[in-house]
Amino acid sequence: MRILGIDPGSHITGYGIIEKKGNYLRHIVHGEIKAKKDSLLSAMLNSLYQQLSDAITQHAPQAIALENIFYGKNVRSLIKQAQVRGVAIYAGADKGVDVFEYSPLEIKKAVVGYGRAEKRQVQVMVKAILKLPEIPPADAADALAAAICHANFLKGNPI
Amino acid sequence: MRILGIDPGSHITGYGIIEKKGNYLRHIVHGEIKAKKDSLLSAMLNSLYQQLSDAITQHAPQAIALENIFYGKNVRSLIKQAQVRGVAIYAGADKGVDVFEYSPLEIKKAVVGYGRAEKRQVQVMVKAILKLPEIPPADAADALAAAICHANFLKGNPI
Repeated sequence: MRILGIDPGSHITGYGIIEKKGNYLRHIVHGEIKAKKDSLLSAMLNSLYQQLSDAITQHAPQAIALENIFYGKNVRSLIKQAQVRGVAIYAGADKGVDVFEYSPLEIKKAVVGYGRAEKRQVQVMVKAILKLPEIPPADAADALAAAICHANFLKGNPI
Repeated sequence: MRILGIDPGSHITGYGIIEKKGNYLRHIVHGEIKAKKDSLLSAMLNSLYQQLSDAITQHAPQAIALENIFYGKNVRSLIKQAQVRGVAIYAGADKGVDVFEYSPLEIKKAVVGYGRAEKRQVQVMVKAILKLPEIPPADAADALAAAICHANFLKGNPI
């Protein structure tokens, strides 16, 4: 099965698609969707939807995995992130793809082995697990990590 | 011109469309989109998009007006509301409709005349301004109030 991981952010949204065959995980694609400087929120959400929608249509994932929202940040960026997250979830829902969420702890445990791993460790382990030629950028790595987490558990909270 | 006001909420999203001809405001339609009990977030966002999208296609507004997000609430419902808001903004953006936001103060001033008006006063004034046969439900009234505010100013912050 194919799994799309998404790491929604107020400025950069990471995404990554992997394929699980038995215990083998294969990397399909990853990338980062960046908001254009000074672009309106509406234009940014529109472009985000189009890019995620294209990736879903092209690679046909059967599930989407997201990290649940971390409440610790400042409220302003939390709201921006949540607006992006809503559109990311909708981009899957309108094509009938099931959406699951995992805690940051579960995702880090799934890729690094313990829940308090740092961002860099996640990037390094994602590269190793998926046999990538180089370390993926941070937000794409987080997205791939969410996908790996779902591949290991296949029973996150459906949202 | 036709204006769609939207009041995104974690449980109920109000919407209302008015038409401005000179100084005359005509009521076109209003309603509330309610989340089904126990429905998944993804299903709720999908249904929300479909209903807003249908209203936009059917009534062809040239602008969308939203209240900006009020930061005072608890973070959990703020995140839910922001996810809904993201999809509401996208529903307009993907059809090329410009989206504007106003502060609660501006909206209340536009319909009641002063910024500290209570919910009930907004409902009563919306009924009077649009010559409605009865008082609209609270969330639809807030959406119509945002639309009235845009009709009066036509220069909110584009988002």
